[in-house]
Amino acid sequence: MKRVKLIVAYDGTNYSGWQIQPNALTVQQVLNEALEDLLKEKVTTIGASRTDTGVHARCNVVVFDTEARMPGNKFSYALNTRLPEDIRIQSSEEVPPEFHPRFTETVKTYEYKILNRRFPDPTRRLYSLFCYYRLDTEAMRKAAEYLVGEHDFRSFQASGDIDPNRSTVRTIYSADLTVEDEMITFRITGSGFLYHMVRIIAGTLLEIGRGVLPPEVMKDIIEAKDRSKAGPTAPPQGLTLMEIRYPEWEKDID
Amino acid sequence: MKRVKLIVAYDGTNYSGWQIQPNALTVQQVLNEALEDLLKEKVTTIGASRTDTGVHARCNVVVFDTEARMPGNKFSYALNTRLPEDIRIQSSEEVPPEFHPRFTETVKTYEYKILNRRFPDPTRRLYSLFCYYRLDTEAMRKAAEYLVGEHDFRSFQASGDIDPNRSTVRTIYSADLTVEDEMITFRITGSGFLYHMVRIIAGTLLEIGRGVLPPEVMKDIIEAKDRSKAGPTAPPQGLTLMEIRYPEWEKDID
Repeated sequence: MKRVKLIVAYDGTNYSGWQIQPNALTVQQVLNEALEDLLKEKVTTIGASRTDTGVHARCNVVVFDTEARMPGNKFSYALNTRLPEDIRIQSSEEVPPEFHPRFTETVKTYEYKILNRRFPDPTRRLYSLFCYYRLDTEAMRKAAEYLVGEHDFRSFQASGDIDPNRSTVRTIYSADLTVEDEMITFRITGSGFLYHMVRIIAGTLLEIGRGVLPPEVMKDIIEAKDRSKAGPTAPPQGLTLMEIRYPEWEKDID
Repeated sequence: MKRVKLIVAYDGTNYSGWQIQPNALTVQQVLNEALEDLLKEKVTTIGASRTDTGVHARCNVVVFDTEARMPGNKFSYALNTRLPEDIRIQSSEEVPPEFHPRFTETVKTYEYKILNRRFPDPTRRLYSLFCYYRLDTEAMRKAAEYLVGEHDFRSFQASGDIDPNRSTVRTIYSADLTVEDEMITFRITGSGFLYHMVRIIAGTLLEIGRGVLPPEVMKDIIEAKDRSKAGPTAPPQGLTLMEIRYPEWEKDID
């Protein structure tokens, strides 16, 4: 028996998110079917990030255990021939059986993209949020700085997902804004993210960028620990999971 | 009667190119239907660039004549509500009736994008060509320099489209390569382009980037005036029409 780690990229447009569920097509289901077709055995996959409907990933980390003799690094090619074009394995390798993609210290990076121009651009509509209002990126950048550090991010957690026994404290290592060719990219790196956290932060930054709220309000929203103080949840197509790192494992598995 | 100029952006993925034709869905057909629905009159559109199946546009220039009283600048909003998400009017304005988007001196800019990495990226597959072979971008850049200037580009014209009475001389003002996040962008600006010219140039640059041909061969290919000397026609999804300018009209219409 061995454990294999996959780096999986996908275009979330046509999927009801990562996690397998009845009556909806998910990335995990399609991947499981490709694995079972390849290995002729029942396979259980564990994904590091359970991305939502419509959210994209450059590098979700997935593991599964198999009896197959195929070397770990051969799975990427074998699976890609069995997967649709909107899901592509980026790499595969054998990892120690103790490696768990979710119950391990991680550093995750997400990007939220906002196309800020007068009219939508059809060639960029699937991977960004279109925003007609001219956004003040300096105000957004200033607001994003308040996110950095260890904070209780309860204000940025989807209200339907609250479990009082789970901590809502997370550490954000960086939160930056770049602008190129009318595209604003908000990039955030942290020790973990609550359900809908990046999209609620993006929705709040949009209100700040539009001038509805001043940048300093970000500090107050964090302190309030109240979802109703933050902005709306920004739509999913602007969000992409860019990177997941496992600092304590990197010497072993990278 | 007035003439209205539209700047039209589209994602070419789901269209059989710009030009109306029987038994295939084209951008022009969808636009004409939206115009006729809006104006309740028969409309004839003229597009500056008859982009091919699968090719994208940020800014095709289209004109039509109408009896409607609607001010020229109102057409963009009225049409966008009637168009699918993969076609979007970027601006509209009234222009003098002598303005013809094709029989007027133009400066056109195209981009051809090549994603050069080990595995395809699903979120970039629709707007670039994926290339597994590591490309020598310095060689490609050097080769591209030979394109600049006035040349007979017969070697880069699709062999099915040859009319001995039409000149194949064109002027290329610039041909540059940039690389960012594993994406190679070849950007070319010229007085006009022969049928498939940018895609044949891109196919030739790919052979040079792979080391199949040396960069200097570009000069020989131009001089040969023979389609068989150039590389293959690169696939359409990497190509986007980025800009069309009308130098002699810019004072009047911009």
